[in-house]
Amino acid sequence: MNAIDNLVALLSRLPGIGKKSAQRLAYHILEAPRSYAETLATALSTLHDSIKRCSVCGSFTETDPCPICTDKTRDATLLCVVERSQDVRVIEESREYGGRFHVLGGLIAPLDGIGPDDLAIGSLLARVRNERIREVILALNPTVEGDTTSLYIQKMLKDMPAAVTRLASGLPVGGDLEYADRLTLARSLRGRVTM
Amino acid sequence: MNAIDNLVALLSRLPGIGKKSAQRLAYHILEAPRSYAETLATALSTLHDSIKRCSVCGSFTETDPCPICTDKTRDATLLCVVERSQDVRVIEESREYGGRFHVLGGLIAPLDGIGPDDLAIGSLLARVRNERIREVILALNPTVEGDTTSLYIQKMLKDMPAAVTRLASGLPVGGDLEYADRLTLARSLRGRVTM
Repeated sequence: MNAIDNLVALLSRLPGIGKKSAQRLAYHILEAPRSYAETLATALSTLHDSIKRCSVCGSFTETDPCPICTDKTRDATLLCVVERSQDVRVIEESREYGGRFHVLGGLIAPLDGIGPDDLAIGSLLARVRNERIREVILALNPTVEGDTTSLYIQKMLKDMPAAVTRLASGLPVGGDLEYADRLTLARSLRGRVTM
Repeated sequence: MNAIDNLVALLSRLPGIGKKSAQRLAYHILEAPRSYAETLATALSTLHDSIKRCSVCGSFTETDPCPICTDKTRDATLLCVVERSQDVRVIEESREYGGRFHVLGGLIAPLDGIGPDDLAIGSLLARVRNERIREVILALNPTVEGDTTSLYIQKMLKDMPAAVTRLASGLPVGGDLEYADRLTLARSLRGRVTM
């Protein structure tokens, strides 16, 4: 396999990139100044060394604990539960939220063999207890898996004093949180409802 | 700027990759096994060293001249003129063509300041003369720039014995050759018409 085919094969393994798109990207990189390919190569090879998971909230960060967990100006009694690290970024960009985060690392999906024990739910319960959280906001995708996970967490938190809310409708049902626009997301944060 | 933002910024410079897609790709790479990022980094950093342009036809290749130009089983009197190196791959995949190629490196586009002298048209005329080409197939995108370039080349070749043909209609007008399917492309090669 030659160098172009090799690059095309690697790029086609990315989500949403088919063979044709991968070819287009590979030829674009080949025709762009050589410095672009080199800079991208460096960014990729150093990525996993620069980024780790925050030992408190589980999101990707360069420092542990992450800047959000150590920010004294944020409301430490408000905890937003998200599926993945990139959802933290999406919610931060809505500029509507000033509390902390907890990354589950996935959603309950029995058909895929993912149960509550595979997710950071135990550490969530411990945080709610130890950090005296007054409100847990469940910001999971409005899908079957997201709703199942929200209900499960709500049940586990029932005997604790924290209020449990979820994002308001406004997100298109069956959609993906990552692709919501800033305003829709801000509105659904503002209109969150008690479960 | 942290390592993720840096990677997102680099990926958004690729064609067809917006900010949201770049974020999705970056987090996917972060969550994938570290070996994937490393393999991709190596493929990118060695790309420009492995690949050069064929000194005969101008397409990207690991050996110079390229395997197509040195293949004795191909019809050396048939020359297919394409805009970019990736078009060679597309036409090869149609498995309908057994001649050689000539890559122009672009199309005549006066509004973008690209004239005939910026393209490999001089070397095309020399090849048609020296290699005793009997037919030149113009396989350029069916756009204004493609048609302008085809007409210009046809005019320059008028006094040479080579027949000049272009791909048959069948390609959707205004479309992009790179995204044509194999069968449509095969049919338009078979039905090529004299200009």
